[in-house]
Amino acid sequence: MKLVECVPNVSEGRDSVNVEAIAAAVRATPGVILLGVSSDPDHNRSVISYLGEPEAVLAATVALCLEAFGRIDMRAHTGCHPRLGAVDVVPFVPLGGVSMEEAVALARRLGERLGAEGIPVYYYEDAALLPERRDLADVRRGEYEGLQERLLTDGGRPDAGPAVFNPRAGACIVGVRKPLIAFNVNLATDRLEVADAIARAVRLSSGGYRGVKALGVALPAKGQVQVSMNLVDYQSTPIHRVVETIRFEAARYGVSISECELVGLAPLAALEETIRYYLQLHEFSVDQIIETHLLGS
Amino acid sequence: MKLVECVPNVSEGRDSVNVEAIAAAVRATPGVILLGVSSDPDHNRSVISYLGEPEAVLAATVALCLEAFGRIDMRAHTGCHPRLGAVDVVPFVPLGGVSMEEAVALARRLGERLGAEGIPVYYYEDAALLPERRDLADVRRGEYEGLQERLLTDGGRPDAGPAVFNPRAGACIVGVRKPLIAFNVNLATDRLEVADAIARAVRLSSGGYRGVKALGVALPAKGQVQVSMNLVDYQSTPIHRVVETIRFEAARYGVSISECELVGLAPLAALEETIRYYLQLHEFSVDQIIETHLLGS
Repeated sequence: MKLVECVPNVSEGRDSVNVEAIAAAVRATPGVILLGVSSDPDHNRSVISYLGEPEAVLAATVALCLEAFGRIDMRAHTGCHPRLGAVDVVPFVPLGGVSMEEAVALARRLGERLGAEGIPVYYYEDAALLPERRDLADVRRGEYEGLQERLLTDGGRPDAGPAVFNPRAGACIVGVRKPLIAFNVNLATDRLEVADAIARAVRLSSGGYRGVKALGVALPAKGQVQVSMNLVDYQSTPIHRVVETIRFEAARYGVSISECELVGLAPLAALEETIRYYLQLHEFSVDQIIETHLLGS
Repeated sequence: MKLVECVPNVSEGRDSVNVEAIAAAVRATPGVILLGVSSDPDHNRSVISYLGEPEAVLAATVALCLEAFGRIDMRAHTGCHPRLGAVDVVPFVPLGGVSMEEAVALARRLGERLGAEGIPVYYYEDAALLPERRDLADVRRGEYEGLQERLLTDGGRPDAGPAVFNPRAGACIVGVRKPLIAFNVNLATDRLEVADAIARAVRLSSGGYRGVKALGVALPAKGQVQVSMNLVDYQSTPIHRVVETIRFEAARYGVSISECELVGLAPLAALEETIRYYLQLHEFSVDQIIETHLLGS
């Protein structure tokens, strides 16, 4: 089965009637499972996550956007999180059976559709057409308030839709990113410098694995410290490799792993390699899991 | 989602039209996934496996039985595998979300239904009403040819249906068993005595784990030996414990595990504990796997 997740961020986090109506557009789309809705009143922003087969997810996302455009007027929007528009950012996340290319094609179809509604659209991350638009923070610079002026410049030309300011909806940033796994490793010590050193050892920014973002964190209630991570590319940097690296780096301080924690959800494919590695099941595939056969083909 | 597998063995393994018609009865039942059909002409017997939610699996099984009773006449049946009837044995296997008790209730409902069709029914293994009927081999003793006489004895009284010989259909043995995982561990040695010693160490029959049946096997083409196992109770004896035991027992001979092999399918729940153990994810549950949310609730 082909599976895509979508996690739109909309600029409404205070009026629960609006948020519920926007989420309802997803719920009403056949073949789509709503995973969660999370609103932040300070950000005045909600994150809606759902998944399904690509066509169903695209349909749900179009429905969600149209509902949000009807209910959110950016001229009245305030909130402490940067944003460009009513539907601020729409990341598609390819899961089992879906390639990056397919997910990008899906994102571009959404972009064209929103463009036809009169919304300027920028593509970011793996859907970016321009290297300077890969990074979401760069695309969002200047925010909604700077959008009208920006659309008049060469650098502000949208990737889809009109180069015309839409005061009500603003612009929409559509993209594709890999699934992100929030994974924490608790260490049987209260020495924060150990967690810090290990975080530095495993994260890309200080010489570690490409797919790892990491931070040392104190857990005073437990009397322990934690290496708190986002695994942003589990295919290139699988979970087990990070855990075993932390294990041997911790050993130099006489410290062991007390417990790990998977925060939220992970795709089955991310655990396939874990099973292969630890059980030395070189030939294992998720197709050998009975439940996989219930997901259709 | 509640999930049950069913693996009926029917006494037809030569006429592919009949086998296909019997499998088609399963395929035609909404909500049931046919996993496989395997026929053996020497045994003159076919094994059909499928799964789904309990009610759907029960409906598919009733349809399969009625189709088989219409097509198989035991008076003409020959084959080298022991059997009592046209639908010889129907094991239900509880998977995710289904208790043994629920599976037994399902098996008993099938028994009553077949009894109403005039078929004597015996319950075996976890569905057995009598301790002497737990073991399938005991229930099948005397086979179809001895059934008429046996039904007249106290010990031969069926658990459901009439104590009357049905010459066309024979009797049906209905039961519940735990899911069985076929798991092999290859050792980096060609010394069969090492595989034999390890098989003895891990299997119930010689003092090992309750949930393990094991045998040492030579793999001459690989120049290796194998501990070939059936894990018959992965909840009490989880995969990782068996693998790690084999690892430390092999180490005393200076031997390591070269590779493991999962033969066929395993339920997701059997791999949940593997992930919990190796990643030290004490709180992990299969609900944290995205795809689980696609299986319904």
